[in-house]
Amino acid sequence: MRPSQRTLGQVRPVTITRNFTAHAEGSVLVEFGGTKVLCTATVEKGVPRFLKGKGQGWVTAEYGMLPRSTHKRMQREAARGQQTGRTMEIQRLIARSLRACIDLESLGEHTIIIDCDVIQADGGTRTAAITGACVALADAVEFLIRKGKLTVSPIKFMIAAVSVGIYKGEAVCDLDYAEDSDAETDMNVVMTETGKFIEIQGTAEGVPFSHEEMLDMLALAKEGIEMIIIEQKKALGDSLIKA
Amino acid sequence: MRPSQRTLGQVRPVTITRNFTAHAEGSVLVEFGGTKVLCTATVEKGVPRFLKGKGQGWVTAEYGMLPRSTHKRMQREAARGQQTGRTMEIQRLIARSLRACIDLESLGEHTIIIDCDVIQADGGTRTAAITGACVALADAVEFLIRKGKLTVSPIKFMIAAVSVGIYKGEAVCDLDYAEDSDAETDMNVVMTETGKFIEIQGTAEGVPFSHEEMLDMLALAKEGIEMIIIEQKKALGDSLIKA
Amino acid sequence: MRPSQRTLGQVRPVTITRNFTAHAEGSVLVEFGGTKVLCTATVEKGVPRFLKGKGQGWVTAEYGMLPRSTHKRMQREAARGQQTGRTMEIQRLIARSLRACIDLESLGEHTIIIDCDVIQADGGTRTAAITGACVALADAVEFLIRKGKLTVSPIKFMIAAVSVGIYKGEAVCDLDYAEDSDAETDMNVVMTETGKFIEIQGTAEGVPFSHEEMLDMLALAKEGIEMIIIEQKKALGDSLIKA
Amino acid sequence: MRPSQRTLGQVRPVTITRNFTAHAEGSVLVEFGGTKVLCTATVEKGVPRFLKGKGQGWVTAEYGMLPRSTHKRMQREAARGQQTGRTMEIQRLIARSLRACIDLESLGEHTIIIDCDVIQADGGTRTAAITGACVALADAVEFLIRKGKLTVSPIKFMIAAVSVGIYKGEAVCDLDYAEDSDAETDMNVVMTETGKFIEIQGTAEGVPFSHEEMLDMLALAKEGIEMIIIEQKKALGDSLIKA
Amino acid sequence: MRPSQRTLGQVRPVTITRNFTAHAEGSVLVEFGGTKVLCTATVEKGVPRFLKGKGQGWVTAEYGMLPRSTHKRMQREAARGQQTGRTMEIQRLIARSLRACIDLESLGEHTIIIDCDVIQADGGTRTAAITGACVALADAVEFLIRKGKLTVSPIKFMIAAVSVGIYKGEAVCDLDYAEDSDAETDMNVVMTETGKFIEIQGTAEGVPFSHEEMLDMLALAKEGIEMIIIEQKKALGDSLIKA
Amino acid sequence: MRPSQRTLGQVRPVTITRNFTAHAEGSVLVEFGGTKVLCTATVEKGVPRFLKGKGQGWVTAEYGMLPRSTHKRMQREAARGQQTGRTMEIQRLIARSLRACIDLESLGEHTIIIDCDVIQADGGTRTAAITGACVALADAVEFLIRKGKLTVSPIKFMIAAVSVGIYKGEAVCDLDYAEDSDAETDMNVVMTETGKFIEIQGTAEGVPFSHEEMLDMLALAKEGIEMIIIEQKKALGDSLIKA
Repeated sequence: MRPSQRTLGQVRPVTITRNFTAHAEGSVLVEFGGTKVLCTATVEKGVPRFLKGKGQGWVTAEYGMLPRSTHKRMQREAARGQQTGRTMEIQRLIARSLRACIDLESLGEHTIIIDCDVIQADGGTRTAAITGACVALADAVEFLIRKGKLTVSPIKFMIAAVSVGIYKGEAVCDLDYAEDSDAETDMNVVMTETGKFIEIQGTAEGVPFSHEEMLDMLALAKEGIEMIIIEQKKALGDSLIKA
Repeated sequence: MRPSQRTLGQVRPVTITRNFTAHAEGSVLVEFGGTKVLCTATVEKGVPRFLKGKGQGWVTAEYGMLPRSTHKRMQREAARGQQTGRTMEIQRLIARSLRACIDLESLGEHTIIIDCDVIQADGGTRTAAITGACVALADAVEFLIRKGKLTVSPIKFMIAAVSVGIYKGEAVCDLDYAEDSDAETDMNVVMTETGKFIEIQGTAEGVPFSHEEMLDMLALAKEGIEMIIIEQKKALGDSLIKA
Repeated sequence: MRPSQRTLGQVRPVTITRNFTAHAEGSVLVEFGGTKVLCTATVEKGVPRFLKGKGQGWVTAEYGMLPRSTHKRMQREAARGQQTGRTMEIQRLIARSLRACIDLESLGEHTIIIDCDVIQADGGTRTAAITGACVALADAVEFLIRKGKLTVSPIKFMIAAVSVGIYKGEAVCDLDYAEDSDAETDMNVVMTETGKFIEIQGTAEGVPFSHEEMLDMLALAKEGIEMIIIEQKKALGDSLIKA
Repeated sequence: MRPSQRTLGQVRPVTITRNFTAHAEGSVLVEFGGTKVLCTATVEKGVPRFLKGKGQGWVTAEYGMLPRSTHKRMQREAARGQQTGRTMEIQRLIARSLRACIDLESLGEHTIIIDCDVIQADGGTRTAAITGACVALADAVEFLIRKGKLTVSPIKFMIAAVSVGIYKGEAVCDLDYAEDSDAETDMNVVMTETGKFIEIQGTAEGVPFSHEEMLDMLALAKEGIEMIIIEQKKALGDSLIKA
Repeated sequence: MRPSQRTLGQVRPVTITRNFTAHAEGSVLVEFGGTKVLCTATVEKGVPRFLKGKGQGWVTAEYGMLPRSTHKRMQREAARGQQTGRTMEIQRLIARSLRACIDLESLGEHTIIIDCDVIQADGGTRTAAITGACVALADAVEFLIRKGKLTVSPIKFMIAAVSVGIYKGEAVCDLDYAEDSDAETDMNVVMTETGKFIEIQGTAEGVPFSHEEMLDMLALAKEGIEMIIIEQKKALGDSLIKA
Repeated sequence: MRPSQRTLGQVRPVTITRNFTAHAEGSVLVEFGGTKVLCTATVEKGVPRFLKGKGQGWVTAEYGMLPRSTHKRMQREAARGQQTGRTMEIQRLIARSLRACIDLESLGEHTIIIDCDVIQADGGTRTAAITGACVALADAVEFLIRKGKLTVSPIKFMIAAVSVGIYKGEAVCDLDYAEDSDAETDMNVVMTETGKFIEIQGTAEGVPFSHEEMLDMLALAKEGIEMIIIEQKKALGDSLIKA
């Protein structure tokens, strides 16, 4: 029995609010139950130095948690003078995933920076962030098309993510904090709307996991992500841009 | 004529939402028009090393802006590895102001950390932050009383803040971004509910200001802050704790 | 009664020594009683990146304290790897004040860097620094004129600064360390030779201050600064350049 | 056809040299073809602050590359003043994997630090590092037993790791640099000697990968790791300590 | 012919001013011609962690240059966030030299921190710093004796330092900036009042130097240091404490 | 009697292995007994900014110790976020020494970076590093000649280094860790194959040293370095490039 009374494969209510703040080219508040992440997309002209003159664009991401988004206050990374290893790992994951869903050549010499800031945390912040970031990215692309900078969308497919794990011996989908801190295995899965994998990161927290457990988790992830992508598309509505 | 069509002394609509996020002992979203700041209060047992054994408490504050809270994206301070001088100046101002409204001896050996994070910026983020922070502080104190850690509130008086300035030759109250970036003088004023000053920080941005202009600005600040304190008290309602 | 036996409005002896060191374009030792600050002005060709091609100049400032300029040794900021918030706040104040007294367009594409290093501290180091820095700036401008880089001085007016405060219930001018560490309110005031304000930064250290107290402090500040500007002009003598 | 002429599942020659340097409690040079990583284990008394008094031990890991271990020189992280996100990600992976194979309670209040330094890189440095680190860990445990600090080994099972990927449309095992920089998918797999998973990290570098491709990769990983664990056991010989 | 018209072995006028600033336990301005260094000594109770409980004291040193002590402004190390390698090298040299002239056991559990800050630079700042630092150290020791913390002086002998070099093919003593920037070899020598060596650091800047040249330089250093120690003793007068 | 049973002037067995790793333009493992340092040379086109357009090349060096190259583990400088003063001092010494043996004008606009990483430490790591670095530099120059970038070698002479010291009252050559940690004086000497000095750095660790002791140490250094240069030349064989 899950602490939240959900069934094994049940994802928490997913809410995606576009235009949550005023200034960014894309601004999406994504909620997976009590987990709330603000994802903004910034469009900048030009590309980082290492891509100068290659005629392609770039997508990058940064991640942060508000110090009191968590049960216990975390030290502010800006005051500490350094991002933690966990933060770096997560923002690298978000950026890699987003770059996998966009054709950087078609993007032209634009850089899109996705900022994912956790307002409230209840497990699964990185997968919620990827899910919201993809919508913010779509809005940024729409902005470029509206401004006449692009004529077709370079987005190849939507992506979304969910966490799965082994909790009390059973595969479960979309772990909240209560489950996450107690799970034997934790796995983050990023998939495309076409059912293929972008990233799988599975970690045995206590007990090694078997091939069968992995298959069970992946099956739940697939179902969960399908549901989440429906929410993304609902949120985007007519704005949904096909490549 | 002000860009926002407001009268010279008119403060933007002020909204104060308590319990905006789930985990903090105080969590207040304060809005001054388009400026939105999340102020959370964290209660920790004990005090910093330099106060050990003095039988008093401590209040401190940190300030940050989400990278895309502004028109143009700002570099994330955590990635940059350092807080800017502006950030340090602001968080020092917030903390000093809050310490002026609380009796640190009565607080006992507790530390209250106020995090002010700007979600959306449209001028006056530091004065909005002080205004919201004081409400979050009141909630943190209520938490301590509810938990039996304090019997009376150590808060001496409510404080609130507003910016005033000289814009196109006239004193105006609560400058938004359009005014702020064009003002001749910018002054931040922190006052108590009893009409006394906690902080005055006035800066001639272009043209030096006269004694008379200063008096005009202070008169508008006083009126504005009185109105803002009414909103604080409305938000706190029965929770309002008197010293 | 003030610890130093001065009258309420009495400024400590102010000494301004030009050409204190050999290499800088301006080098001024300013003394307010036991407070001694070395202010050097460096002229560099060109401007920071954000001003490139705008046809204007720039003035900036840095502030530091020698580790043992104070009663108790302070950690060397270079060894600590970071300037403190107090240092940043002060150097931002100095730079803003100096930029207010110079016409940056007339300065042309030159950068003037003012370094203010406290050799010995006895209260009021930031206001002494501004006072000395303005003289060093005048010397740097004279250097540019002598070298034929400028034909007229871009300095609009001299500025000087003094601290005032409420000490044992009375407004006093130019607080020394003994008063400063015990004052109820501390206010730094920067004014022009024409009697207008550049900056006011007033802080209630313990008890909020009233409108009347503020007026008392400002009156003392005005008188004090008038006296200090006389000393600046004496020091500059024939070198005094009018805009 | 693989650039190295290996068959799809063929692992490069794996060499494990114990006691490679003189001072560490465990010192292992691990080679996967041209990839050479020095893994040292340091035993320290006591545990980090967050574990004080919990009666358990700790295992942690650090990873670095010599600046010219790679084709093109990389900036020295010590000179740069910061570890890269990639380095942090890798050392977190190594440490998590090692903690999964040891019973921290039985280790008692000892900390074992594993340093993995890449002497020469040719793809797969992180999986080689995990493979060598587990042998160094076994040596450190043997040291503790020899010194009478432990009576039984807290190691639960040996672990080893290999990279797999999709290269030119086919699943391959143990990618070298030539393959790695050209692979569509890259997956690092850490498994126990009992055939269970500790970590799976798969990334679509260009094209998303399918469920079938993932199964193919995992099958190769399993075979490869079995072979590698045989080499670990050969290297440990009689020293091999069973839990 | 030397640019300064000095004879080959002639040291610049050496001036040692004690009690140059008010707060430090020792405060010495040392001048070697145009090189001016302020050396302050701070006495603190206790010792660094690595010496706790060993019943001995510690002497350490820090070195800095005011940004415009030099011909061209140097970046402020506090703003840069890091001391340069040159600074670290110099402060390590000063500290080592001072520790060589004091009996750390007799000093008891006190730490003496020597801060050497260059006010004006004209070559030889590190050797001037050592020379002044030794006098400041003597003053700090006298302070401890006066306060009854020590009964006898732990100083074993005075030390002083001078730079020598090969300039235009000839050995010269006490190089100023004009010579220093043009010398073939530069050597810093620290000696005791008893004519023995504490440190020799010689560097061929352009052309390797011969055994004979080294002997010539050392002979000049010995003479120069003897003269400098006379100045130290004159400055200390009756305060001179013998071990 | 030396702990290693060596005679007073006896250098430990010196082994120089070229091409120790695969990717660098020069890669040399140098061993002085138990001290093992990997020295790689990287050739890069272009020069640092401060040399742009001067038509000359540059040689620089970096030094590091693997955390467990020593008896007790040292903190990893990359994790600590800063190189120690000792590291900076050593890499400055290595770089200065190498620049003294090469004609930077003849090198043309190339930068050669020497990385010296200590794999195992047993005293004398900096002198071993200089010795190995010179061979790696020769290999890098040979690479440039082979590639047709240079026609003649810019190397003016080989250099090598050794440590000497006063141990139990006697001058000894090439101190190992046991001697080094117990020596009264420690001196590092860098010489050319023509018997001239590049650097001398002598430090009295406990007792000041006399002129005679210095001459004794230098005599041993000269002999030792002659022997070491023979090993360098043996290692280089036909590759040895004469200027």
